[in-house]
Amino acid sequence: MSSVTELGLPDRTLLPGLPARVRIHEVGPRDGLQNEQSTVPVEVKAEFIRRLVGSGLRTVEATSFVHPRWVPQLADAEQLMPLIADLAEEHPDLRTPVLVPNERGLDRALEHGCRDIAVFASATETFAQRNLNRSLESQMAMFTPVLSRAKAEGLRVRGYLSMCFGDPWEGPVPEAQVAAVGADLLAMGCAELSLGDTIGTATPGRVAAVLRALGERGAPPELLAVHFHDTYGQALANTLTALRLGITTVDSSAGGLGGCPYAKSATGNLATEDLLWMLDGLGIETGVDLGALAATSAWMAAELGRPSPSRAVRALTAG
Amino acid sequence: MSSVTELGLPDRTLLPGLPARVRIHEVGPRDGLQNEQSTVPVEVKAEFIRRLVGSGLRTVEATSFVHPRWVPQLADAEQLMPLIADLAEEHPDLRTPVLVPNERGLDRALEHGCRDIAVFASATETFAQRNLNRSLESQMAMFTPVLSRAKAEGLRVRGYLSMCFGDPWEGPVPEAQVAAVGADLLAMGCAELSLGDTIGTATPGRVAAVLRALGERGAPPELLAVHFHDTYGQALANTLTALRLGITTVDSSAGGLGGCPYAKSATGNLATEDLLWMLDGLGIETGVDLGALAATSAWMAAELGRPSPSRAVRALTAG
Repeated sequence: MSSVTELGLPDRTLLPGLPARVRIHEVGPRDGLQNEQSTVPVEVKAEFIRRLVGSGLRTVEATSFVHPRWVPQLADAEQLMPLIADLAEEHPDLRTPVLVPNERGLDRALEHGCRDIAVFASATETFAQRNLNRSLESQMAMFTPVLSRAKAEGLRVRGYLSMCFGDPWEGPVPEAQVAAVGADLLAMGCAELSLGDTIGTATPGRVAAVLRALGERGAPPELLAVHFHDTYGQALANTLTALRLGITTVDSSAGGLGGCPYAKSATGNLATEDLLWMLDGLGIETGVDLGALAATSAWMAAELGRPSPSRAVRALTAG
Repeated sequence: MSSVTELGLPDRTLLPGLPARVRIHEVGPRDGLQNEQSTVPVEVKAEFIRRLVGSGLRTVEATSFVHPRWVPQLADAEQLMPLIADLAEEHPDLRTPVLVPNERGLDRALEHGCRDIAVFASATETFAQRNLNRSLESQMAMFTPVLSRAKAEGLRVRGYLSMCFGDPWEGPVPEAQVAAVGADLLAMGCAELSLGDTIGTATPGRVAAVLRALGERGAPPELLAVHFHDTYGQALANTLTALRLGITTVDSSAGGLGGCPYAKSATGNLATEDLLWMLDGLGIETGVDLGALAATSAWMAAELGRPSPSRAVRALTAG
């Protein structure tokens, strides 16, 4: 049998009301690898990022300058950054943001010349307590010095907002609460807000409600990204809904790497290839080559010693 | 951690423009089990159907009266039907359609008192040749006597149309061709037409184009069902698109059982639980209890000796 790509599949058939272009924010190297049980050598991480960029991705979240005790899998951030420094010269439009939990993390990011950083906030009280050891209110105090110094240094800051749809301890999260915290993050200087469905429970109506509530708080789709987890298989349907509502930045993880330690399943991030199959089919430009990306994920799966959870990767790389 | 259903997840948030109620056409016992490598005992199949009906499903495709040489996994159709005969008495609204490939199959279905049958057609020349050993044109000649006798007997006939979106040998399938074959099947007496994405390559724009073409040939959404495969992770986004266009009957397979021998991947039918998570979240009535259904699929997965490919089943039944 010929391959589906040789046969011109997915077929390009547009659907009215969708954007012409989408920016994929690739989180595999950071969000994907941070939950790995085994240690991935720093050279493999650098090669992974190199191949992701080679497939056409232009926003690749590289690592996190979090304390090694919290996320030992990313303890090699200092070693990784010099290994990928040449990529920026070759691709002037490339962004390789790094997660920065606090001022110490910001110091380390600045030492490595990072121009793009991300901070991580919670939309719910329980998750703020459990993940940040802060109240929902006081987490903002933690970001204030980071954001004001980032602004002074001319950095671009992305704000991650987790548990935007459902929370494993609290249940459904009121959209007004999500919108209030999100609006605060934007007001404090975040250039972009990524709305996380951390446990993957969202369905399309909820997605629309949260985006509407943010719009009412002065946060238009241009400032927002969506970050869906595929725990219940909903990520792509939710993404389609977000695209209809004007979202043009979508987070995903090559090969579907990663997962949330608070979610009851092995399945985690939306796979970039599953996303790309849909975007390609809809004629939405991304600049990413699906075949090259699937080959990269198959290579990474071999390095990790287990098959990719991405359906598109498995289908595209089957014998 | 409490379970997500205890926490009231998925949250019910409606989205305008979607139907209030969807009929799930469960294909697990027939389409799901027909590709199993191992032999499933007939008592297990009967218990599977019994549990599916117990979860609230009211259309459960039971088996196929195909020649045992073609589909040995369903060679026990004659033994199965008496074992589930009492279900119809208990649930007067229950339908347990059986696939009927030809007149001999129809004879057997009538001997067992079946009131609902299904025939299986191809939308492409190559698949008609390979699967039915007929040309696209002459496959209709095969259905004529079956459909006229079924009409005389007062049976309800569903027409399956496969390769409606992409074909593994021909590539993208012209929607006018799909609509022409589909309109013929309806004109010949099919009460319902199920549009199969047999290799799972469809994306939402293609779904809309095919539904539009069928509408132009006089086949409104009320006469149509969609049958998506999740080979590239697209099934639920395609389903959402179909629901927006008026479709109210969706085919799926409990636990995601099944696959297409012509598709290059282990992943097959849309899992009923992934579908139901979305429909529940959107407040769309189905009459099916998600928890009971996921428990049924977990039981069946244990019988088959491997985990369910459904993401929702894995998440809902994780320890």
